[in-house]
Amino acid sequence: MPLIVQKFGGSSVSDAEKIKHVAQRVLQTQAEGNQVCVVVSAMGDTTDELIDLADSVTTDVTGSREMDILLTAGERISMSLLALAIKELGGKAMSFTGFQAGISTDSEHGSARIWKIDPKRIQEAMAQGNIAVVAGFQGFSFENGDTTTLGRGGSDTTAVALAAAMNADICEIYSDVDGVYTADPRVVPRARKLAQIDLDSMLELSSSGAKILYIRAVEFARRHAVPLRVRSTFSADPGTLVYTSKPGEEMEEPIVSGVATDDTQSKITVIGVPDRPGKAAEIFQIVAEAGANIDMIVQNVSTTENHLSDISFTLPHSDRPKVVDALKGRQSDVGFASVTYDDEIGKLSIVGAGMKTSSGVSAKLFGALAKAGINIEMISTSEIRISVITRADQLKEATRVVHTAFELDAADTAVVYAGTGR
Amino acid sequence: MPLIVQKFGGSSVSDAEKIKHVAQRVLQTQAEGNQVCVVVSAMGDTTDELIDLADSVTTDVTGSREMDILLTAGERISMSLLALAIKELGGKAMSFTGFQAGISTDSEHGSARIWKIDPKRIQEAMAQGNIAVVAGFQGFSFENGDTTTLGRGGSDTTAVALAAAMNADICEIYSDVDGVYTADPRVVPRARKLAQIDLDSMLELSSSGAKILYIRAVEFARRHAVPLRVRSTFSADPGTLVYTSKPGEEMEEPIVSGVATDDTQSKITVIGVPDRPGKAAEIFQIVAEAGANIDMIVQNVSTTENHLSDISFTLPHSDRPKVVDALKGRQSDVGFASVTYDDEIGKLSIVGAGMKTSSGVSAKLFGALAKAGINIEMISTSEIRISVITRADQLKEATRVVHTAFELDAADTAVVYAGTGR
Repeated sequence: MPLIVQKFGGSSVSDAEKIKHVAQRVLQTQAEGNQVCVVVSAMGDTTDELIDLADSVTTDVTGSREMDILLTAGERISMSLLALAIKELGGKAMSFTGFQAGISTDSEHGSARIWKIDPKRIQEAMAQGNIAVVAGFQGFSFENGDTTTLGRGGSDTTAVALAAAMNADICEIYSDVDGVYTADPRVVPRARKLAQIDLDSMLELSSSGAKILYIRAVEFARRHAVPLRVRSTFSADPGTLVYTSKPGEEMEEPIVSGVATDDTQSKITVIGVPDRPGKAAEIFQIVAEAGANIDMIVQNVSTTENHLSDISFTLPHSDRPKVVDALKGRQSDVGFASVTYDDEIGKLSIVGAGMKTSSGVSAKLFGALAKAGINIEMISTSEIRISVITRADQLKEATRVVHTAFELDAADTAVVYAGTGR
Repeated sequence: MPLIVQKFGGSSVSDAEKIKHVAQRVLQTQAEGNQVCVVVSAMGDTTDELIDLADSVTTDVTGSREMDILLTAGERISMSLLALAIKELGGKAMSFTGFQAGISTDSEHGSARIWKIDPKRIQEAMAQGNIAVVAGFQGFSFENGDTTTLGRGGSDTTAVALAAAMNADICEIYSDVDGVYTADPRVVPRARKLAQIDLDSMLELSSSGAKILYIRAVEFARRHAVPLRVRSTFSADPGTLVYTSKPGEEMEEPIVSGVATDDTQSKITVIGVPDRPGKAAEIFQIVAEAGANIDMIVQNVSTTENHLSDISFTLPHSDRPKVVDALKGRQSDVGFASVTYDDEIGKLSIVGAGMKTSSGVSAKLFGALAKAGINIEMISTSEIRISVITRADQLKEATRVVHTAFELDAADTAVVYAGTGR
């Protein structure tokens, strides 16, 4: 019997009526002859409300034993309500916390990594005709049994990891968005929904700022070859298939699958770095010790006689203050001149598996941006992605002209959903 | 070092400000040279809100795996917030779910009984200078590790059970009421707060309808000789000591410690029961199979020649419909004439350890009620308690006249708290 893992996000279970709708939907999937394992997020804004509560009793809401217990309450509520709703409709359901689902992790509270999954209880429950309802986002430390959380997008990760552990036929990610688009439909009204996209390109889109799937979940799917389907809880549309290996034979791999944007990054520039071996390493060691994740890096090697260079890099807004502080604190040790930062940058990326074998893609990208009068401040590339940094206030315009230049525009305007966030 | 277990009810942790206040209070107790283990209920009305949510997705909200997971979310939230608040004030705290606290139970979801407590982790945490914060109301099944709940008043039970398991010096029960009163101050404005009361009398008061301490917790305290102190979160008043053995030497045991009332019972009368051995047993077998708890029983043995008797008993309102149905369904088997019921009864009890050695107590009780024109419908007694059934609408008046007759009235009117419920 085919096994399907279905993940429903917070907007899909935000009230009792929606939970009942999801109950019907999963029962329908089971009635079509599948074993069904359902992963749920917390209801609506529950997690944010819990963070607000914590915020009002403490100044430190970073990952800890206590924060993890607090935050996992939300998924425990939604999972038990969904199981009750399925039973109310005459179905069989059994709910599982992260612990009960056998999801063991390391002890990194707030952003634990899955160590091992033992899905025995879930598989037994499904074999007995139950729909297994699993709380997303949570696991337990294999060291001491404490509750842990998987960090942002953790419920996607739970679903994909369970699908991998149980060798599921597909992992369906349900939200209020009906698939993966060539660009954010709120910015590009003519964005097209993709019928399918390869996992490599999906990974690049996610890491370039597309919010539809969280990068850790996509990485997990890619490493374990789990096919995904991104679809809407509120329509019968098949959504977008994220395939693991090759597309259907008749399909040509598109040169550019989509345009992703990210306005959550800052740029830090370290000015006047002595142009000697090891200096860049010293700087990035300081950044790493401050606990920040760097995205793009550009080093402008000095051409003057003073042998000084500038190093610029991008990182999340939230990491910027601590990294600037850390760098300033070590300024005399390292011997650079000064540090500047810029919170008003935007990142635009084009992604496509066909870029590996096509030429002229970067020329077309830079030409379209130049024609629109948009300056490029930094560039980084991978085999199937080109990313550029622009001014933040030019990002939307940049997205539209690039979308048009690569002939991604649909004939019709896309349906724009009320809440295309998560 | 003395060990104190402190339990804070829902009204004591109903918002962030109150949680911060509780954090200060427990830190103060620790600073006075004690090890402190804190048990918390869910914030304010959280549990009722979760039940309402369940009620909107299912028609069956009785105890189940899923309901227990749902309901325990509330205590997980409050315990982690309290631990965070203690840390914010510079203290050391570690929080524990029922599972982490080692509270194993049977698998009776919704009303599990504690099987065994292994408080090792809590004791280790306290030895390291932490305040141990434990989620009340919850445990885990020793059979399969699933989350269980201890039923109404479960957080009191958690606190007393932990105090017993760790041989604590005292278990303090904090709420918005500052002690045990001779009667409900909302009904009897001149009710007096008791400085102390023996556990036997407290058990009778709780089982007779006094809401201040839940009966299961008091039973636990009595069985394991755990002294309790009932006091207010919001005042420095020492409250009421519930002592385990003997009061202070200079104290005489009061004849009557207090008056308790209960308006949550119904009376069922089975009319025309054949007056043969085994017939009463048949009737109470039917009642037991319907899952009802009986309180008082009166059998009016027939004096007529037809050898028929009437049996009346009281039970909670909520059990009345199913018991009446069950009896009607077996009417011809058992051979009784009919069943009637009455939801408009009230129960008044007087309780006091001194009643064992005093005479004239029942005469004084019945005299006071007769003088006020209040009819007595049923009577039951124990060594230290007399309970009578009256009309429901006469219960408050009955309480006042009995309170006065036993000279319990204070010189001044008692402070009546806004919410003296739980």
